[in-house]
Amino acid sequence: MSSVPKKPFEVFISYGGVSPSGQKVTIAFEELKAAYPNLSKELDYSVHTLNFQVKEQKSDWYLKINPNGRIPALIHTRPDGSSINVFESAGIIQYLFERFDTEHKFTFPQFSDDAAHSNSWIYWAHAGISPTLSQAIHFRYLGEKIPYAISRYVQEMKRLYAVLDTQLEGRDYLVGPGKGVYSTAEINIWSWTQGFHWAGLTKAEIETDFPNLDAWITRIAQRPQVLAESKLGGRKSKFETHCV
Amino acid sequence: MSSVPKKPFEVFISYGGVSPSGQKVTIAFEELKAAYPNLSKELDYSVHTLNFQVKEQKSDWYLKINPNGRIPALIHTRPDGSSINVFESAGIIQYLFERFDTEHKFTFPQFSDDAAHSNSWIYWAHAGISPTLSQAIHFRYLGEKIPYAISRYVQEMKRLYAVLDTQLEGRDYLVGPGKGVYSTAEINIWSWTQGFHWAGLTKAEIETDFPNLDAWITRIAQRPQVLAESKLGGRKSKFETHCV
Repeated sequence: MSSVPKKPFEVFISYGGVSPSGQKVTIAFEELKAAYPNLSKELDYSVHTLNFQVKEQKSDWYLKINPNGRIPALIHTRPDGSSINVFESAGIIQYLFERFDTEHKFTFPQFSDDAAHSNSWIYWAHAGISPTLSQAIHFRYLGEKIPYAISRYVQEMKRLYAVLDTQLEGRDYLVGPGKGVYSTAEINIWSWTQGFHWAGLTKAEIETDFPNLDAWITRIAQRPQVLAESKLGGRKSKFETHCV
Repeated sequence: MSSVPKKPFEVFISYGGVSPSGQKVTIAFEELKAAYPNLSKELDYSVHTLNFQVKEQKSDWYLKINPNGRIPALIHTRPDGSSINVFESAGIIQYLFERFDTEHKFTFPQFSDDAAHSNSWIYWAHAGISPTLSQAIHFRYLGEKIPYAISRYVQEMKRLYAVLDTQLEGRDYLVGPGKGVYSTAEINIWSWTQGFHWAGLTKAEIETDFPNLDAWITRIAQRPQVLAESKLGGRKSKFETHCV
């Protein structure tokens, strides 16, 4: 860990930073900071990259922060000096937006139908898109090629993309009134969907087979806060999945 | 769908009912009904079992309830006559306890550290235990035996069990003060952990390698509300995973 002065938030991601799970968290911070400039001090965060090559994510000091030994994780040091560790990307995002998105710019009021729908989609992606893409990557890049396993996970990715594409029919965003509202559902899900090339799918396939999803991916990629995240220091083109 | 008079809740699970994802939801109802006897009318639910053999979970009528075409899903018809569909087991449980666990008998107050910790564990299980056990089952029961894939998911199950076992060291439950409190973390996670035999692990292995987890599994299995769930009509010994 670095010895720079402590900021309220310390975020732990993988070296190079290009893990969709880590990306979600830094995008979340960028979005909150842009929407609530008055909170920029409270939301200041430092990024710690873990070196997976020496299995730093399984080191004793990190397991005290995240008992699961994966990224991302968060330490929040609060104004009273107390601190809390939070793990799992969706858990971190929920923690942040519950506390800082006080005007519901990215979330829906508690007990609203939209909040319930948003939760369904967030859980859906956390159990679906995220582990499935991780498995597709694992088997596609494995030395021993196992066609059955590659096909299983690439096909499942296509099924999941089709579910999203259907939901986005006639809509700009997954949840919310009218054509929908950019919300934590997007912040949780987008980074996993735009990695389609890691599942062996081409941009042309996405455009043709999942046009609503394609437009949604592009729409979100153009947000200044998402672009800001992509320029974070240490970024390499290397993709590092959170799955061992 | 049956033609019995409509109850406030309609729960959709797999035929036979023994899917851990479906189990979570019916245990949730039994726990809430026992803890809040004054809400027994509001919490009354009917169970609809989908016939996976004829792919009822992919039928047009069901996709309107759960766009992901899997179980479980819920329809809540509210006192004002409006209704909402909720999908994903953890989303359903969150929906129910946010609205009905008003005295925090199974949840922690919003903004508390325990609530954040509980969320981390729930997301952890939703992305870890649940998809991993599903993959272990798939490859263990597949006609074409792929040793690499079987080993991958059985080993990952053991890793996840070890994470739980460590968290439960000196504790009765995952989250909460002292030795912990039985909470929605348990309701979300238990049904997936007690299916260890489907990952090819024996009770003796669990007892020896994960003693804290073993005690936790037994502790929860003895709850009257969990036993009540196991006696629900239509139950067969057949295990049906939510993963196709």
